[in-house]
Amino acid sequence: MPDTLTQTATDRASAELSQLLGDRLVTSRGDRTHHSHGEGLPDAGMPDFVAYPQTTDEVAALAAICSAHGIPMVPYGAGSSLEGQVAAVRGGVSVDLTRMNRVLDVSPGSLDCHVEAGVTRMQLNRHLRDSGLFFPLDPGADATLGGMAATRASGTNAVGYGTMREVVLGLTVVTPDGRIIRTGTRARKSATGYDLTRLYVGSEGTLGFITELRLRLAGQPEGVVCAVCQFPTLEAAVGTATLARQMDLRAVRLELLDEVQADACIRYSKLEKMQPLPTLFVEFHGTPQAVREQAGLFRELAEDNGSVSWDEAETLEERMTLWTARHSCYEACIALKPGSRNMGTDACVPIEHLAEVILETQADVKSSGLIAPIVGHVGDGNFHLGIVFDPEDADERARADALADRVSRRALRFGGTCSGEHGVGLHKMRYLAEEHGEGLEIMRAIKAALDPLGLMNPGKLIPERAETPGG
Amino acid sequence: MPDTLTQTATDRASAELSQLLGDRLVTSRGDRTHHSHGEGLPDAGMPDFVAYPQTTDEVAALAAICSAHGIPMVPYGAGSSLEGQVAAVRGGVSVDLTRMNRVLDVSPGSLDCHVEAGVTRMQLNRHLRDSGLFFPLDPGADATLGGMAATRASGTNAVGYGTMREVVLGLTVVTPDGRIIRTGTRARKSATGYDLTRLYVGSEGTLGFITELRLRLAGQPEGVVCAVCQFPTLEAAVGTATLARQMDLRAVRLELLDEVQADACIRYSKLEKMQPLPTLFVEFHGTPQAVREQAGLFRELAEDNGSVSWDEAETLEERMTLWTARHSCYEACIALKPGSRNMGTDACVPIEHLAEVILETQADVKSSGLIAPIVGHVGDGNFHLGIVFDPEDADERARADALADRVSRRALRFGGTCSGEHGVGLHKMRYLAEEHGEGLEIMRAIKAALDPLGLMNPGKLIPERAETPGG
Repeated sequence: MPDTLTQTATDRASAELSQLLGDRLVTSRGDRTHHSHGEGLPDAGMPDFVAYPQTTDEVAALAAICSAHGIPMVPYGAGSSLEGQVAAVRGGVSVDLTRMNRVLDVSPGSLDCHVEAGVTRMQLNRHLRDSGLFFPLDPGADATLGGMAATRASGTNAVGYGTMREVVLGLTVVTPDGRIIRTGTRARKSATGYDLTRLYVGSEGTLGFITELRLRLAGQPEGVVCAVCQFPTLEAAVGTATLARQMDLRAVRLELLDEVQADACIRYSKLEKMQPLPTLFVEFHGTPQAVREQAGLFRELAEDNGSVSWDEAETLEERMTLWTARHSCYEACIALKPGSRNMGTDACVPIEHLAEVILETQADVKSSGLIAPIVGHVGDGNFHLGIVFDPEDADERARADALADRVSRRALRFGGTCSGEHGVGLHKMRYLAEEHGEGLEIMRAIKAALDPLGLMNPGKLIPERAETPGG
Repeated sequence: MPDTLTQTATDRASAELSQLLGDRLVTSRGDRTHHSHGEGLPDAGMPDFVAYPQTTDEVAALAAICSAHGIPMVPYGAGSSLEGQVAAVRGGVSVDLTRMNRVLDVSPGSLDCHVEAGVTRMQLNRHLRDSGLFFPLDPGADATLGGMAATRASGTNAVGYGTMREVVLGLTVVTPDGRIIRTGTRARKSATGYDLTRLYVGSEGTLGFITELRLRLAGQPEGVVCAVCQFPTLEAAVGTATLARQMDLRAVRLELLDEVQADACIRYSKLEKMQPLPTLFVEFHGTPQAVREQAGLFRELAEDNGSVSWDEAETLEERMTLWTARHSCYEACIALKPGSRNMGTDACVPIEHLAEVILETQADVKSSGLIAPIVGHVGDGNFHLGIVFDPEDADERARADALADRVSRRALRFGGTCSGEHGVGLHKMRYLAEEHGEGLEIMRAIKAALDPLGLMNPGKLIPERAETPGG
């Protein structure tokens, strides 16, 4: 039992939650352990209970109970977050929303849909398969849509379709004290009042529960061109990506793999046509003529920058193979060194500095002696190192930490952000003061106003002040 | 002097503000009257002073003084807001930011720029003229960029380029007590912390002063096709727009004029080629081949829906004439009835309901006996009535009010918003409870947290509770 909770409060909450949820309130060690951590670094926080609500009303009733007894609440989706967002570091209830997994409505006429928070992106796309529509955001993991909103996720399609910031039209949110609010409207835009939708998107469960989402969908493109383009140097690959962006060539995906990552993917995903060279994966969506024109212009640009190959995926299967390989970068990194773990960085910088930042980072990796492939959504300035380290080797872990820290600070130095899409959780809290300055005080004021008891996902996102005089 | 201020506080603030600003603190009746209202309906609130700060630091010093003495502060830009946002309804200082009009930085490499809040959109575009870049948002009025952010403005290009919600990368904001915060980064996306940028965008000066903005820019398109397409019925015109949107034909502008508005524009702007019929103005941006393909598909779609003409603007001058005419709709409406005023509505609804809502609205106009042309950014579901009324005729004004009220409530009934782009100000406050429900309490909590003394643009945006027990 965590220090912060008295046995009495926990017992009372337990009794009331059991009454509410029956056997959907679980205290088994196995279930609690499963809910004590996400992916990424091993930073667990054991919840006292795991709850499986099935409706927004149940979440609201749960919140009212926890609020009355001072029990921390930690929203939990697919458990795929990378920064410790779901660890119950102060105990309490892990609220698993995966049983709220209904697609409530799809409107082809307005290109939107209404889903419960536990629906995953792949589930939604399976549901949409015959509708001519799809949900374009693609963070790799089969995350829940509620979790993706909570972390402001994006992924490979963000250049073309935006991030969760852009595609969420509205939310149903349960406040820490159990009120139900609905943000946004079904209209594409609105100018009425504070943008609560965008406030909850990216709030990582610290302001309330996202229980339902209204999302924009996209029409399946009539034409798609997808190609692998390889370069003799990393500089040439990033330079091509940067120029393409500056020329407004509208790739919907523009992904970089450095030579180490390319090599890892070739081995792991058996991409036999590729060489272990700096690589761009690029994809265009649109009308057939338009995508051919765009791809042609991109290819010319790449050739002007010295590209050595241009290989188009001719079939849907070839495309799937390619993007599956891209999404397996994490596993491909780990396979480079059996028994290792992978520490992901998440810098995002202004496009004009991307080449400089990536080259400086690669030099830093080389001098660190670590294996750390670079992979990136370079169309929007976001890139990841997959730092491979042996969890049993304290020195290697320390060098990995130091390398990751330099990546975050370098991004800030170039006017960027320490996290483009993974969020803050536990691991990036140390950078918030530097990134946001006095803005962090505004975030604290909002947190205090909307979660006055500090029960929503406590210990995350917003670092506490060194001293908090007067509480 | 307003009731809420004591003479002593006002005198002290006046002395300190004079010391800060010298002759840039003005009390002349003419200047105060000019700053007592925006455009749109005549709802004036006279400020006690007008201040003309020149730097963010001066705004911060001003805010600290006003905060110490309890003086209301009302940010003022070009004065082009339509919903009473700049009226000093509780007196205090109108803070005119138009002398903060420097373009601080333009980065072609990152497609962004950094400007002071008083720069207008046309000024920025003049500055960018030879850069190959432009600022795409186009609300008609030559509004300041700070004002556009404060009201979450958009305009004719929003379908293609987004609204201020999408194009603002970051802001410099002065808090009511005079702290300076910087929101966002120069990176295209970030997942670190609450989205303060989006919170201030659309906050209408009620949470602080926007003093500087970092904005996304767009590259000048290589290819443009702009056309006027006319239809025998309003239903056919709206149906074409709706289908085009559903087919993901990427018009960057898609504007509707009903037959009354078309007639008004023909007379006012001398558009000799047009007939007084329901009309779409449509524009595509992209590579030359792509825009031709898109325009061709759009034209086919229009013809399938019975369009009677397709007339492309061949030259830049012809395009300018067309868009100038579109932006003169307001004046063209007033010219229909000399001595009249124009009351604009601003409903925005889900695309699938747009045709039904517009047709129901046109029938409502007809039965009201009023002249009220319809014009709309139909690509995103937003449309305006320009209700022409005689300000001396109480009965006509009452009928105009009732018609406008029905438009707002109809939008809510169809899952939309009472304001797509003009904001709330004074006039739309009555709809917020219906549109946001319990969410309004969250907005109140944010307002209380970030402006605890209630000095920023008081009496606007967030309606007060009927009773506020315990203050």
